[in-house]
Amino acid sequence: MTSAFAPGFDWLAHRASALPGHPAIEFGGEVWSFVELDHRASAIAARLLGAGLHPGDRAALLAANSNAFVAALFGAARAGVQLAPLNWRLTPAELAWQVQRVGARLLLHDDTFADAALQAAASAGARTLPIQTETGCPAQPAGGWPGTWSGDFILMFTSGTTGRPKAARLTFENFFASAAASAFNIGVDPADRWLACMPLCHVGGLSIATRSLIQGTTVVIHAGFDPAAVNRALRHERITLLSVVPTMLARMLDADPDSYPASVRAVLVGGGPVSRELLERAAGRGLPVLQTYGLTEATSQVTTLSPADAPGHLGSAGKPLFSIRVAVDASPGEPGEILVAGPTVFAGYFDDPQATERALRDGWLHTGDIGRIDPDGFLSVLDRRDDLVVSGGENIYPAEVEAALEAHPNVREAAVVGLPDERWGQIVAAAIVFEPGAATGWDVLEGWLRERLAAYKVPRRWRLADQLPRTTSGKLQRHRVRAWFGPAP
Amino acid sequence: MTSAFAPGFDWLAHRASALPGHPAIEFGGEVWSFVELDHRASAIAARLLGAGLHPGDRAALLAANSNAFVAALFGAARAGVQLAPLNWRLTPAELAWQVQRVGARLLLHDDTFADAALQAAASAGARTLPIQTETGCPAQPAGGWPGTWSGDFILMFTSGTTGRPKAARLTFENFFASAAASAFNIGVDPADRWLACMPLCHVGGLSIATRSLIQGTTVVIHAGFDPAAVNRALRHERITLLSVVPTMLARMLDADPDSYPASVRAVLVGGGPVSRELLERAAGRGLPVLQTYGLTEATSQVTTLSPADAPGHLGSAGKPLFSIRVAVDASPGEPGEILVAGPTVFAGYFDDPQATERALRDGWLHTGDIGRIDPDGFLSVLDRRDDLVVSGGENIYPAEVEAALEAHPNVREAAVVGLPDERWGQIVAAAIVFEPGAATGWDVLEGWLRERLAAYKVPRRWRLADQLPRTTSGKLQRHRVRAWFGPAP
Repeated sequence: MTSAFAPGFDWLAHRASALPGHPAIEFGGEVWSFVELDHRASAIAARLLGAGLHPGDRAALLAANSNAFVAALFGAARAGVQLAPLNWRLTPAELAWQVQRVGARLLLHDDTFADAALQAAASAGARTLPIQTETGCPAQPAGGWPGTWSGDFILMFTSGTTGRPKAARLTFENFFASAAASAFNIGVDPADRWLACMPLCHVGGLSIATRSLIQGTTVVIHAGFDPAAVNRALRHERITLLSVVPTMLARMLDADPDSYPASVRAVLVGGGPVSRELLERAAGRGLPVLQTYGLTEATSQVTTLSPADAPGHLGSAGKPLFSIRVAVDASPGEPGEILVAGPTVFAGYFDDPQATERALRDGWLHTGDIGRIDPDGFLSVLDRRDDLVVSGGENIYPAEVEAALEAHPNVREAAVVGLPDERWGQIVAAAIVFEPGAATGWDVLEGWLRERLAAYKVPRRWRLADQLPRTTSGKLQRHRVRAWFGPAP
Repeated sequence: MTSAFAPGFDWLAHRASALPGHPAIEFGGEVWSFVELDHRASAIAARLLGAGLHPGDRAALLAANSNAFVAALFGAARAGVQLAPLNWRLTPAELAWQVQRVGARLLLHDDTFADAALQAAASAGARTLPIQTETGCPAQPAGGWPGTWSGDFILMFTSGTTGRPKAARLTFENFFASAAASAFNIGVDPADRWLACMPLCHVGGLSIATRSLIQGTTVVIHAGFDPAAVNRALRHERITLLSVVPTMLARMLDADPDSYPASVRAVLVGGGPVSRELLERAAGRGLPVLQTYGLTEATSQVTTLSPADAPGHLGSAGKPLFSIRVAVDASPGEPGEILVAGPTVFAGYFDDPQATERALRDGWLHTGDIGRIDPDGFLSVLDRRDDLVVSGGENIYPAEVEAALEAHPNVREAAVVGLPDERWGQIVAAAIVFEPGAATGWDVLEGWLRERLAAYKVPRRWRLADQLPRTTSGKLQRHRVRAWFGPAP
């Protein structure tokens, strides 16, 4: 029997041999060739092994977007160490919990987040390792680098509806299949330059780096999303591909009235439907927008709507990529849970057989998202998970915020919902039922939450409630909570 | 554990859904969209199942290059029937032997080769099925098409040094990995149009059809190689990619002095080294030539030399594609047997465990070809197999021709070699030792051979010999036989 994948094949060594001088990464005016990236990754790998880590061990990474982030990624691969990228917006307490959750022995960090890393590592009982000091080209250990470039690679935390984040096991095979599926959809130009302005600590950003390595192309990394900087890069730095969420696209178009050059092959927009108005504005300025649906558990992209199909299928996320199958658990044309199958579907949640069993049943990934497939095979996503709030590209699970609120002695119960917001897509809002006789002010709750949750999870709006609206079976009726905050602006 | 490949994923159904109206095949002025190809393949699949074939059964295919050839290919895939494409240059006796060798229950054929097919099938005890009458869109059988699109797909005959052809088992995984490796090397433009003017019954031509389906691009098929027609297609029919052998490239350049448009992204040249003169002529006319090394047992392409590297590494076949590893069984820099590993390596020879064991040992494909890897990692192929003669893109194994000669009562022994030839690359030559007292004319031998061998295998030059030059251990010294025919022209 043959396989379509080569275990033991070092992606980075291949690229350093096949395209030694080709730019692998551009970041902040610095250009790393594949050879330079290869050396940087080796330096990280040597440090990981030198620190006593063994293949199969886990490490966490707390770093802003940078070329060093990518060196850490492939350095871990080369050492055979599984890497859990952490969201730098989390509090040290949240970070420490995640470090412990995956049993990371080491927390890699950059200069920017050194303080948070030291604090989180201390409370998690892990050591730390700075990644930006790693240069030079260490010799391979005798017998070669121990990384097998197959099986578990990334442990990507994804918030769960039950409140606590779960670590999705993404494999080398997943990333390879995702890179192939992308190539067989939008093509690959060997001169491609894919701009990563979304966080590398999420799958949407990180998979740009893996894809570019596999495809032998260039990833251009921005430290964060700056609409003017993105516009400048698209117009003057030969960027061919870009991934954003709808609010980012809108802010780019708002930033100035200039049009874009034909060198921009595609703008992949995920994380929610793109309005007709936004689509038309983008098209009018020369941006070919591809609407996509994806999720961490499927290594990002699952479906894409091509520009040609967009006008006739507004709000749809298109059709599955090559190798990927999508179904909806409902009668034809009716809404139901979106199911995904194929080689990009993850290997399960780390150390969580129950959650894994819920997610991976009958050969399908049960996404929890609600969608509908039209007679022509186009998928529409009606709700990203049941209750998920997506604010500025960050996923926020109401249950987690509710749990933090309900942990406060003054609070009896809380309902958290997302409200439409022009700038952020959604903002978080909370309805609170206080304990009888307790003080009902927001100030004390806000301080409480800021100690426990990342700032983006803290509700921007709130209101008092006597009781929460529930069905007879006791299920919270979030649509009625949303209505309390009034119609969409 | 995850896999990078999706078994059960119907490549053609995917393309018919994702790109229904996109041209899948152009042939002789006819354009088939992916939907049209899907219907044609279904018609073939229905006929195969209707003829009583079951998944896992084998069928053979004797057809000239055409769109119907490709419909048969994917129709067999959809029915789960393994397909052995036969070389239409073979005699009915050779064809019958191959049909029997793989236990094909059915011989599919086109109109052009109906007579040869009927004759071969009759003597092999197989039924025949014409493929060009298949149109319409039959309903799927209840439960769907039985093809799993994984495991064995093509049984590709490759001549062996022991004389008789062997059938290489090429899997869906092999072709998928080959298409991905190509995408990660020369890229994929969704508007790509790859011209197939080499025989589809060989892996070099056939893999253009599988790659184009997987990548969602267009294959443009020529019935045969006509330099003027190829030049016309490159200049006026938006062809972006082309695969040829060196002699074909030379004939294209000879046919007229015009230059080629920039729309031709790459010309892949396999089957032997490209001379500096030919490279320079091609470059001067605007053709970016990629020299390649490949073989049937690795689903075609293994290494490629990029145009940028070509001047500094003349005669080299370049570096391995993504996922593929190449080694030489010798000290560094010394010549030795070329070894290949990776997901494009075949599953073994059909029903031939001994030959399979010889070819697949210690995790490597032992190609039998001799090569050398220079310090920069570039592979040079010194000899295609020990004795292989490549004439007009056809592989000819001397042992097979020698066996046919030695079967004649007048012949005591024979040595067959290839001689350099400007037009064909090589031509076949034979040195004959006749039985004492037997007539020594060539005429009678030529007639004998023409009954037994394809025309291209019959020697074009011959000479008498008293005895054949051998080493003390009795091994034929072919270089001395070659020298008898004089220096290269």
